[in-house]
Amino acid sequence: MTAPLSAAATLAEIGERALIEALTADLPPAEDVLLGPGDDAAVLAVEGPVVTSVDVLVENVHFKLGWSEPADVGRKAVAVNVADLEAMGARATGLVVGFSAPPQLQLRWVREFAAGLRAECASAGVSLLGGDVTRSRDLTISVTVLGGLDGRAPVRRSGARPGDVVALCGRTGWAAAGLAVLQRGFRSPRVVVEAQRVPQVPYGAGAVAAAAGATAMIDVSDGLVGDLGHVAAASGVVVDLHRDAFEVPDPLHAVAAATGADPYALLLTGGEDHALAATFPDVGAVPEGWRVVGTVLGLSDEQPAQVLVDGDPWPADGGFDHFASGR
Amino acid sequence: MTAPLSAAATLAEIGERALIEALTADLPPAEDVLLGPGDDAAVLAVEGPVVTSVDVLVENVHFKLGWSEPADVGRKAVAVNVADLEAMGARATGLVVGFSAPPQLQLRWVREFAAGLRAECASAGVSLLGGDVTRSRDLTISVTVLGGLDGRAPVRRSGARPGDVVALCGRTGWAAAGLAVLQRGFRSPRVVVEAQRVPQVPYGAGAVAAAAGATAMIDVSDGLVGDLGHVAAASGVVVDLHRDAFEVPDPLHAVAAATGADPYALLLTGGEDHALAATFPDVGAVPEGWRVVGTVLGLSDEQPAQVLVDGDPWPADGGFDHFASGR
Repeated sequence: MTAPLSAAATLAEIGERALIEALTADLPPAEDVLLGPGDDAAVLAVEGPVVTSVDVLVENVHFKLGWSEPADVGRKAVAVNVADLEAMGARATGLVVGFSAPPQLQLRWVREFAAGLRAECASAGVSLLGGDVTRSRDLTISVTVLGGLDGRAPVRRSGARPGDVVALCGRTGWAAAGLAVLQRGFRSPRVVVEAQRVPQVPYGAGAVAAAAGATAMIDVSDGLVGDLGHVAAASGVVVDLHRDAFEVPDPLHAVAAATGADPYALLLTGGEDHALAATFPDVGAVPEGWRVVGTVLGLSDEQPAQVLVDGDPWPADGGFDHFASGR
Repeated sequence: MTAPLSAAATLAEIGERALIEALTADLPPAEDVLLGPGDDAAVLAVEGPVVTSVDVLVENVHFKLGWSEPADVGRKAVAVNVADLEAMGARATGLVVGFSAPPQLQLRWVREFAAGLRAECASAGVSLLGGDVTRSRDLTISVTVLGGLDGRAPVRRSGARPGDVVALCGRTGWAAAGLAVLQRGFRSPRVVVEAQRVPQVPYGAGAVAAAAGATAMIDVSDGLVGDLGHVAAASGVVVDLHRDAFEVPDPLHAVAAATGADPYALLLTGGEDHALAATFPDVGAVPEGWRVVGTVLGLSDEQPAQVLVDGDPWPADGGFDHFASGR
């Protein structure tokens, strides 16, 4: 067993132990990791309460092997999950991974996946603490991220108040444009295809927003209108987005023109970019890197909790239902 | 949407929101849960470092829908994972669940699964903090458990020393006997079939062992010889189990007789019961509820790190490899 393993070897050939070694290779040391992979559980130093969230990525639901490189899948698995902690104003510091894969999967895939996982962990400032590996028909990646609040209160969805301003940090519509392109069998514009493969989460922006007094915050995973709908419902307010606050980036113009779509539909309802949307008491509180895109209004008899665009309901709510819709 | 949902309705019919409601219904309040399900992430109060572990249960790998009731699967998902924290001497307090299921799954199944999850969480003293739901071909349950050490150091696999005694808390061989029975199409002895469906984890025994001075500890998931092999390797010792220390329970006698198996093979290599195995400095340190089953010996030129039974290697090591072996 001392000969180097061929990258073409399958999990059935190399077995569970070599798979775990490939997933946990080259982990950088971290002071707050008191016990890393290799025992029954890991131990992470956290000051104060621990913030946690789990996300599961399933082959052919959240990614396709023909569309994404293994490193993309590793990076995406980290990014989408850390975004949830950002949205609480928390700082993610550690994560565990459940890795379920068919026995035919090659070691090459695992090594590249692990490299992507490591790279995104490094970008996000997060340590891989451990995991579980098991056989499955479809590749399924479950990531649970842990972090702390550095003494702040968590920023919930329910804190938006009439008079607040709505601000956005990060991109929207790019991943949806990439999906539209890939579904038509194309690979360009390359920037939107890359956005579909790996979201660019604005790491650290959530904590900055919390420190700046954000009253509510959410990770934009299902589309801005849909996700701000959760804020509106939890807070008992109306969110009014201002169409003029959005500029249509060139690649979204191009995709919209090529597919006959409304570029604003991409911007307002496209999911999977994992931008952060938050409300702040006033424009002066909005930190650098955030753009004001709307205002928070009170409820009235005619106006229940909802998201409007320039005062009118957006035609389709844009939320993604894993079970009611296909992809 | 106010009409009660039929238990026969599928996830495709009820959608993601109703699925989440079914999974998170009737959660009891808990003081340390500062923020439960419903936001981007959950917040759990933990004193000191946080201990965490993830386990993934896959349909037809870890459970079969024809063999287990939905509540069994919910209970097993909690139990196997809390056992990992027990094995560190930690106290599990919260968990998050990744729930991946085919759109054809019925609401009835989810409700019964959730009831099992709740029941086992209550037994283990753990709160359901949140989760993620997604579509998949096979039912796949990922559970990540969090907990604390109450000021103690974690009990690792690497602390066993020559002269220590080896002790066991909980059952071994029962779940393997149940699997042998189910694989032959039988449903009795009922006690071993139930042991296969839901392990009886000795909740709290890990913390007691840690407080009593356990030098090493492990959760017996793959079989006693195999798992103590991890302790032997990590500690650089030989573990010698005493066959006479094991009594063969009647149901294991019965299964062994019916299947032509050696009952000691069940006891020594059967997995999935999630007993705890630990080493202690001397017999006097072994807490109530634990049975001394062996001793720890030093390495020698002829004797590398391994597990022996009455001085001899056990013929098959009994470890389970998810990728190299079928089921």
